[in-house]
Amino acid sequence: MNEEDYFKNLTDRERAIFEGGISMGALFHQFVGTPVSVDTASSLEEAIKKSILLQPAVIDVSVKLNRNLIEKCSGVMGYTSLTGEMLSIKLTTKIKEKTITTCISYDENLQYPIMYIED
Amino acid sequence: MNEEDYFKNLTDRERAIFEGGISMGALFHQFVGTPVSVDTASSLEEAIKKSILLQPAVIDVSVKLNRNLIEKCSGVMGYTSLTGEMLSIKLTTKIKEKTITTCISYDENLQYPIMYIED
Amino acid sequence: MNEEDYFKNLTDRERAIFEGGISMGALFHQFVGTPVSVDTASSLEEAIKKSILLQPAVIDVSVKLNRNLIEKCSGVMGYTSLTGEMLSIKLTTKIKEKTITTCISYDENLQYPIMYIED
Amino acid sequence: MNEEDYFKNLTDRERAIFEGGISMGALFHQFVGTPVSVDTASSLEEAIKKSILLQPAVIDVSVKLNRNLIEKCSGVMGYTSLTGEMLSIKLTTKIKEKTITTCISYDENLQYPIMYIED
Repeated sequence: MNEEDYFKNLTDRERAIFEGGISMGALFHQFVGTPVSVDTASSLEEAIKKSILLQPAVIDVSVKLNRNLIEKCSGVMGYTSLTGEMLSIKLTTKIKEKTITTCISYDENLQYPIMYIED
Repeated sequence: MNEEDYFKNLTDRERAIFEGGISMGALFHQFVGTPVSVDTASSLEEAIKKSILLQPAVIDVSVKLNRNLIEKCSGVMGYTSLTGEMLSIKLTTKIKEKTITTCISYDENLQYPIMYIED
Repeated sequence: MNEEDYFKNLTDRERAIFEGGISMGALFHQFVGTPVSVDTASSLEEAIKKSILLQPAVIDVSVKLNRNLIEKCSGVMGYTSLTGEMLSIKLTTKIKEKTITTCISYDENLQYPIMYIED
Repeated sequence: MNEEDYFKNLTDRERAIFEGGISMGALFHQFVGTPVSVDTASSLEEAIKKSILLQPAVIDVSVKLNRNLIEKCSGVMGYTSLTGEMLSIKLTTKIKEKTITTCISYDENLQYPIMYIED
């Protein structure tokens, strides 16, 4: 069985949504906890971007880590651990003609880094 | 904005697929690497199950870790690190009347732990 | 070369300290980010304990997750992601006659979950 | 209490060993599972290096990911998940005049990525 055969029961749009969800869940749980400072934020953004671009159907990734929050959390040790609150990420998945943009951003009311599909 | 407002652009089925993808990507990248032996496999299965049941829309989770592979990889140290190859998991997400079962299992031909939607 | 041969350049006490450091660093970065609620805290404590007991030289582990902080962080979604701030852990490593207790607890002044050796 | 006060019960050498163990355990469990290919290996090496240099007492880090093994594991999907078997890392910790080099490399006989102190 090749990869495509697994997805015969999904429309192209549904599969693009599925792959977007997988990759967003993956990067959150892979990278939360990583030591990070204002100085190393851009190196970590680059590594997150490159690793997620490897995942099936992902064609574009934009990663922004919140420097203000990283600085505020760093304390006297000079660094902190990456949390979901610091993530602002968009990733684009494409299956044939269908393109989907999956986002994560922190919602203050929900106290929760919410993942959703952009219109 | 409450949680539901984020998902107005998805059908119930699409959102169930999205949440299934998120939770499967999440558990893979959270737990791969965990020290595991034949003796601790059931405790780890339980913790994976309970943590993933917390995620949005997830109503059922079944986790089976491959004991034969854990034993084969354990060597003289008596344990190994959890890999994607050892995972056989199904999780069910439900949005209103729509129920979706998301799976991961290792495909030998693809050399890849593939995530897909069960019919 | 067997395992012992790697450690001929360390005293028993030094190796117990080394193994304590490894296992504390390991569990922090393995489990931070895991979905957790007040209801699932004890299952996660058990899985952390059992997985870390597999590591070399570890003979005892006590894991306490801060329920008050888990509850405070949970918001309307009913759960949160495990952070270093929530961890209060002691693990004991033993090499021959030398026993060492390694701890992690959150230090408010340092804004940092500090790892240290107990007297 | 400041950071130094936690370590009055350790010699400088013991503390350098402790911090080496913590950082090696940390990076293993933070990064194992990350999607990686031959093309993204150097970006991931750089991010691992920069994040670990933030940790207490770490003054130098060298990270080599095994491209041959990454390629062999990649299969038709074009990438794989980072495993302990792919890691060849040295990190140097220094406390006052005492310098310690902590290593991880895969031992075929032990079937285990062993962490040890270099002479």
